Amino acid sequence: MADATSIKELPSLTGLHQRRNPLEENPFFHPSHGFYITPSDVVLSQVVYDLSDASQPHVAYHRAGPRREILYEPSSVKAAIVTCGGLCPGMNTVIRELVVGLWELYGVREIYGIPAGYRGFYSMEAVELNPKLVHNWHKKGGTVLATSRGGFDLCKIVDAIQQNGYNQVYIIGGDGTMRGAVKIFDEVSRRKLEVGITGIPKTVDNDVGIIDRSFGFQTAVEMAQEAISAAHVEAESAVNGIGLVKLMGRSTGHIALHATLSSRDVDCCLIPEMGFYLERKGGLFEFLEQRLKDHGHAVLVVAEGAGQEMIPRTESQKQERDESGNLVFLDVGVWLKSALKEWWEREHPKELFTVKYIDPTYMIRAVPANATDNLYCTLLAHSSIHGVMAGYTGFVSGPINGNYAYIPLEEVAQTKNEVNTSDPKWAWVRSVTNQPDFETNFKG
Amino acid sequence: MADATSIKELPSLTGLHQRRNPLEENPFFHPSHGFYITPSDVVLSQVVYDLSDASQPHVAYHRAGPRREILYEPSSVKAAIVTCGGLCPGMNTVIRELVVGLWELYGVREIYGIPAGYRGFYSMEAVELNPKLVHNWHKKGGTVLATSRGGFDLCKIVDAIQQNGYNQVYIIGGDGTMRGAVKIFDEVSRRKLEVGITGIPKTVDNDVGIIDRSFGFQTAVEMAQEAISAAHVEAESAVNGIGLVKLMGRSTGHIALHATLSSRDVDCCLIPEMGFYLERKGGLFEFLEQRLKDHGHAVLVVAEGAGQEMIPRTESQKQERDESGNLVFLDVGVWLKSALKEWWEREHPKELFTVKYIDPTYMIRAVPANATDNLYCTLLAHSSIHGVMAGYTGFVSGPINGNYAYIPLEEVAQTKNEVNTSDPKWAWVRSVTNQPDFETNFKG
Amino acid sequence: MADATSIKELPSLTGLHQRRNPLEENPFFHPSHGFYITPSDVVLSQVVYDLSDASQPHVAYHRAGPRREILYEPSSVKAAIVTCGGLCPGMNTVIRELVVGLWELYGVREIYGIPAGYRGFYSMEAVELNPKLVHNWHKKGGTVLATSRGGFDLCKIVDAIQQNGYNQVYIIGGDGTMRGAVKIFDEVSRRKLEVGITGIPKTVDNDVGIIDRSFGFQTAVEMAQEAISAAHVEAESAVNGIGLVKLMGRSTGHIALHATLSSRDVDCCLIPEMGFYLERKGGLFEFLEQRLKDHGHAVLVVAEGAGQEMIPRTESQKQERDESGNLVFLDVGVWLKSALKEWWEREHPKELFTVKYIDPTYMIRAVPANATDNLYCTLLAHSSIHGVMAGYTGFVSGPINGNYAYIPLEEVAQTKNEVNTSDPKWAWVRSVTNQPDFETNFKG
Amino acid sequence: MADATSIKELPSLTGLHQRRNPLEENPFFHPSHGFYITPSDVVLSQVVYDLSDASQPHVAYHRAGPRREILYEPSSVKAAIVTCGGLCPGMNTVIRELVVGLWELYGVREIYGIPAGYRGFYSMEAVELNPKLVHNWHKKGGTVLATSRGGFDLCKIVDAIQQNGYNQVYIIGGDGTMRGAVKIFDEVSRRKLEVGITGIPKTVDNDVGIIDRSFGFQTAVEMAQEAISAAHVEAESAVNGIGLVKLMGRSTGHIALHATLSSRDVDCCLIPEMGFYLERKGGLFEFLEQRLKDHGHAVLVVAEGAGQEMIPRTESQKQERDESGNLVFLDVGVWLKSALKEWWEREHPKELFTVKYIDPTYMIRAVPANATDNLYCTLLAHSSIHGVMAGYTGFVSGPINGNYAYIPLEEVAQTKNEVNTSDPKWAWVRSVTNQPDFETNFKG
Repeated sequence: MADATSIKELPSLTGLHQRRNPLEENPFFHPSHGFYITPSDVVLSQVVYDLSDASQPHVAYHRAGPRREILYEPSSVKAAIVTCGGLCPGMNTVIRELVVGLWELYGVREIYGIPAGYRGFYSMEAVELNPKLVHNWHKKGGTVLATSRGGFDLCKIVDAIQQNGYNQVYIIGGDGTMRGAVKIFDEVSRRKLEVGITGIPKTVDNDVGIIDRSFGFQTAVEMAQEAISAAHVEAESAVNGIGLVKLMGRSTGHIALHATLSSRDVDCCLIPEMGFYLERKGGLFEFLEQRLKDHGHAVLVVAEGAGQEMIPRTESQKQERDESGNLVFLDVGVWLKSALKEWWEREHPKELFTVKYIDPTYMIRAVPANATDNLYCTLLAHSSIHGVMAGYTGFVSGPINGNYAYIPLEEVAQTKNEVNTSDPKWAWVRSVTNQPDFETNFKG
Repeated sequence: MADATSIKELPSLTGLHQRRNPLEENPFFHPSHGFYITPSDVVLSQVVYDLSDASQPHVAYHRAGPRREILYEPSSVKAAIVTCGGLCPGMNTVIRELVVGLWELYGVREIYGIPAGYRGFYSMEAVELNPKLVHNWHKKGGTVLATSRGGFDLCKIVDAIQQNGYNQVYIIGGDGTMRGAVKIFDEVSRRKLEVGITGIPKTVDNDVGIIDRSFGFQTAVEMAQEAISAAHVEAESAVNGIGLVKLMGRSTGHIALHATLSSRDVDCCLIPEMGFYLERKGGLFEFLEQRLKDHGHAVLVVAEGAGQEMIPRTESQKQERDESGNLVFLDVGVWLKSALKEWWEREHPKELFTVKYIDPTYMIRAVPANATDNLYCTLLAHSSIHGVMAGYTGFVSGPINGNYAYIPLEEVAQTKNEVNTSDPKWAWVRSVTNQPDFETNFKG
Repeated sequence: MADATSIKELPSLTGLHQRRNPLEENPFFHPSHGFYITPSDVVLSQVVYDLSDASQPHVAYHRAGPRREILYEPSSVKAAIVTCGGLCPGMNTVIRELVVGLWELYGVREIYGIPAGYRGFYSMEAVELNPKLVHNWHKKGGTVLATSRGGFDLCKIVDAIQQNGYNQVYIIGGDGTMRGAVKIFDEVSRRKLEVGITGIPKTVDNDVGIIDRSFGFQTAVEMAQEAISAAHVEAESAVNGIGLVKLMGRSTGHIALHATLSSRDVDCCLIPEMGFYLERKGGLFEFLEQRLKDHGHAVLVVAEGAGQEMIPRTESQKQERDESGNLVFLDVGVWLKSALKEWWEREHPKELFTVKYIDPTYMIRAVPANATDNLYCTLLAHSSIHGVMAGYTGFVSGPINGNYAYIPLEEVAQTKNEVNTSDPKWAWVRSVTNQPDFETNFKG
Repeated sequence: MADATSIKELPSLTGLHQRRNPLEENPFFHPSHGFYITPSDVVLSQVVYDLSDASQPHVAYHRAGPRREILYEPSSVKAAIVTCGGLCPGMNTVIRELVVGLWELYGVREIYGIPAGYRGFYSMEAVELNPKLVHNWHKKGGTVLATSRGGFDLCKIVDAIQQNGYNQVYIIGGDGTMRGAVKIFDEVSRRKLEVGITGIPKTVDNDVGIIDRSFGFQTAVEMAQEAISAAHVEAESAVNGIGLVKLMGRSTGHIALHATLSSRDVDCCLIPEMGFYLERKGGLFEFLEQRLKDHGHAVLVVAEGAGQEMIPRTESQKQERDESGNLVFLDVGVWLKSALKEWWEREHPKELFTVKYIDPTYMIRAVPANATDNLYCTLLAHSSIHGVMAGYTGFVSGPINGNYAYIPLEEVAQTKNEVNTSDPKWAWVRSVTNQPDFETNFKG
């Protein structure tokens, strides 16, 4: 086994001495056989194989979990936690469990929350955190620490880390935030600071690669059911009624796909990974026309990133770019709603027609994590703590094929998890909805 | 890769001819590259390795999914679906998706629901099922087909299968049901009937082995939060208040464990895999005494199978055995409630004390599946259909390390998924609750 | 008592003979003392008095409920039920209970649902309804009969009533619909048809007068909590975060007011009955500036009809009028959001600021009725049936001071229930939110 | 009007001087015309009349609300709040609003919570309360102050009031608590203390008289739907399945009645106000036998106080009496479950039969108040404050015919609100369920 397997190595702090894990002395805690994880414990990155293929080498990641030896003296730890970017169910659970885990498991007593995202490092007062304060945070949506976009000033951030003496930094955020975390890690290394840096990817869209799924995603899919259900009721209660729901997903359609498969009330699911078109044979209008004829109503789910290239842009919108230099997103739901109305008005001017458009974004992302995600966030936070305490740095924790592992931060920052439209899962959506295969139709 | 891997082979029907999968002709369905699964596509059973161990051979299962060639002529299929045992969220979704999948994907038109469990095969009229009839079943708890325990008369069942001409049988049920399914499979093979038999394990307790988890489990954990939350409120609102919640789990404590980790309001979680004791140093009473002193209240979660051996039995209870010859279960919640009251009355006769006992069993298992489980049930049902249509028999579908695979029915019927109390997950419960490590305490 | 009381008389059918209420023969139904309502049973319209005022005459309405004598031979009844206008929680419960009540209580067997609103009378096929069909409708949002706006063609409608032989017509709809119902009643009277016409006011806004509240209102207030809660989380998680929620209420702010009082997370509640202004001393911006300074965030609830006169209109919007000749409504939420952003950009260009706007309209109105409303809809439907069977026509049923009564249809169609901003309830909102008293400020 | 009306007079404090209501100086608060309530503003107690009866005098209660003149100097107020008895949704909202209302409306700064019920007055430390502390309490079930039964020691309580200098006492509790409050009021009067005493009736059973309904009741009915729905699913999924739900209601069946009317899944509703019997013609067994034959399943709702006299008592149970000297309650659900099983075993020994018994009591009463009840609790608390500040004492606030009024405490303590089984509402239950009219059957 060992020979054929290449392991993704992780950076480690170097200037600290090994010491016994204080869990050993925890009165309620008697680490038994199998409790500690060793450096040779790994998780395979690939679990599905085609045996007829030529032999592929296995790739493995270090398994997450408590180590018998750690590198930090708990009383010397000064930890900082920061949340960046948009809201996602479970952020508060992650914060809570970082605090409770550091405090209860390792006896760390100096834990600080950085308010309002990256800019909080250098422009706001940090908040001292303890188990009592965070006790009920997992039952609240959003992030008590507050968050913001941007504000990434590398030099000021690392200066602040240095000046405040933080030697563990837990960074919760999306892909932009993770790319920032890589830069912080690099700069911290360059300055030869003994600071453990770990990223906890937060993306309700579930577009982060390598790990099985991101926290908050299941909660989001759950909440999306309410919006789809309402759209379905609106559509059914009208004559030629269309219920249109826009769901999160700027570059990937995971929420739309999962919500569609879970709900069964959806007639067509549009995602960024699959082009679509409105007019012509095999297009959306033709499909909807048929559905309205057959059932009298239809429900449409569209991920926010779908169809961006089809939405007409004003001159100013052609110039407007976001912080990363990309064209700003336009609202596909609003556009689709009016395109549908124009189409019907043109084709069936005398017949009733209704489009009800629901954008549940903030009602989805602002809820507390459900039980599944709460548990996930707990394991995630504890995995992160164990890794940092053991001296790993520049890494991310996350489940790979169901098992928690440590992944180099850079790898996570660069990988994207897209819906694979040629695998059976997307085929299942098509089979459930019987929606057109736009790409094939188009080529055909 | 191939050399070192041993594959769990599946029985197949032999008397049928291969034919093209009708999905090929589905107008909305254009199977692209990567869509079909081949016999050489496998899922590894093990994903966590200790590389320092001697090389272990890989074990793999056939991957689930549509095959390019199938063995049944869809118009000749006569499928039967049966649900046995207790309720579990998602049963109706599985039934619905079996019906819709067979009908829409493969064009099968003869699909029958067997009412009221195994006995329905020979004592009741089957119900003809179609997509229109089952359209909203996934939004209903329970099983529309109805269910019952027992009633397993092998000969009569196989006679009924033969007489009614069922050539596909989908059996949804718990471990007893799966053992029955093995017998049906054996008898069908003995009679040389070309009948595909597949089992879909249903156990809200999540105690079925090999597969990642059983359907309905996440929904149950979610619902259990309500009961724990109510117990917490009752306990907090009293002076020396104990909230006691009994959760499902006859031989395994998965629901109790997951509900505890998700909730964070639990002070102590008792499961069948971990013995506990009441009196003496390190026991439950001592722990609760301390908690009441520190916080004024405590919440206790107990799996129904925990502590069975400690409950005093009347003479008649010592004789009473269930269908499998085991001693009948006694109600651990009722017993614990009165043991707690006696203890307090004895130790602190003048102080207030309250135990509020909640048994949410039927309010948990009777709800519809949540989004996560609805999606899971869909993939499970479709996996089963593809496998049966491809000619596999005597098998079970289920996710292994996150990927759907086919597993020999017999293997599933024999394997139990217990909580491993020496792995980090249980340690996390202990670290979250700081509850006593009864086993070590006891030995100590 | 009797002398000083004037009773609101109701029209009655005249050409039918009195007969015994079939409830008398219902085996499970033994009308005891106090069961039947007599014409002298009344409900007072006013219950709050200032005794120092000069003596005011009492006004009373006939009490709703079963009469010992009815005018219809049940086997001769042919009832029609129609739903018009927008969705409201409970519509399906009303339909269900009309069907079940007519069938089970009175033995009526011909009950028809008119699809898609008024136009369904003359352009679509009616649907035959019975208890089995409608059994679970009360658990569904929307209206299974479907609905639409407009389509009121008096002559065609009454022709259809006449041609189909409907002799009882139950009309569920908003104020426009009720005004239509008055016309139908008048035309039916003019044609001397023995047709009982009753209206069941449906307005999620709760803007219908005389009756205590309209069905679906409590459910809407309940659901609005989710949106407010999400807005609160979004606002709290940001730096200078504003959560903005638009709630239904075109001419009245009842939902906004009740949702605000129920939630307690709202800093300011804007309703149509109370003018407001943005700039200047005592205005909204000044208030928000202070709130952001004090708390770092604020939540704003705005009824859709508030501030209409302040929203700038394009030339075409100045022309666009709805079916009743009024200027079309503009989206106060979208306008307010951009006004807030401009204000901040102007006043504090360098400080962070976030407005999250939630429009939960369709997620509120499309849900099934909650228990409170389900019960209400049942009593409402049964009251209507008893009234029609007794021969009343041109009336509306509804609770007055908690007791069901019959009210002349015309009176209901003409009366509006507005929020009284000088009574203690609105004062309570102000005291809960401490929001500015715009009107006084303005004058001051 | 005035002549014919008799007003229920309220006790008032006598030793204090009138002063201006500080609301007059509240910057955000400009009491306009109609804002203040005067002593001549009344609410009629009766709103339904039979005009054919001889003239009845009107009875009226003083209307609740702010008075222009008050009796307390806010800075001299020292208020105590206590919660007694079992839990009920909304208790925390009442506490919160008492605190916020006293603080924000009147500027009171000394507000104390008495922990753990009456006994807390003399045996525990009071908790200082302020708006910040109670900010989110309305979102929590139970009572943060904690509660207990009994502990009523009149002398010690009034001593404690006197020693601590409380001059306003807000007592939240059930009928026993209200009777205690009357005694406290009497003793306080006897000692000539200038202490305003007000009761806020808390009874999830809704059995308190005079007022329209008690807080928490609507939430309880809402939550009961979940239990009934689960029982229905369990019953439907079995062969001859009975779902049995016990709901709160020791002497009155309001929750059972309302939950039944709201749900529509119930076949029979048993309440304390209506006797029932099992065997013989017209009894429960005969009815259930028919239902099982017709539908295959049945759902039974039983209020906890129903059928108490039919449950066999052991010798010790015949002696056991509660604090008031009444026989202790036995569990009607457990008894009914086993009676049903015995009956079936006797009558149909070979047929399948299942009874699933759900007791959701603690899951119902421990939830937070829903929006309807939250609003109600707010108005209730504010009404109480205004009354006490105005100098009323020995009174209760509550809605009468939809309008808040002040009622002499003693009157509330003595009146019981029972389900009137001869009025149309109970008839509606019978008509909805078609359940037997046990009393008539029995006599017949």
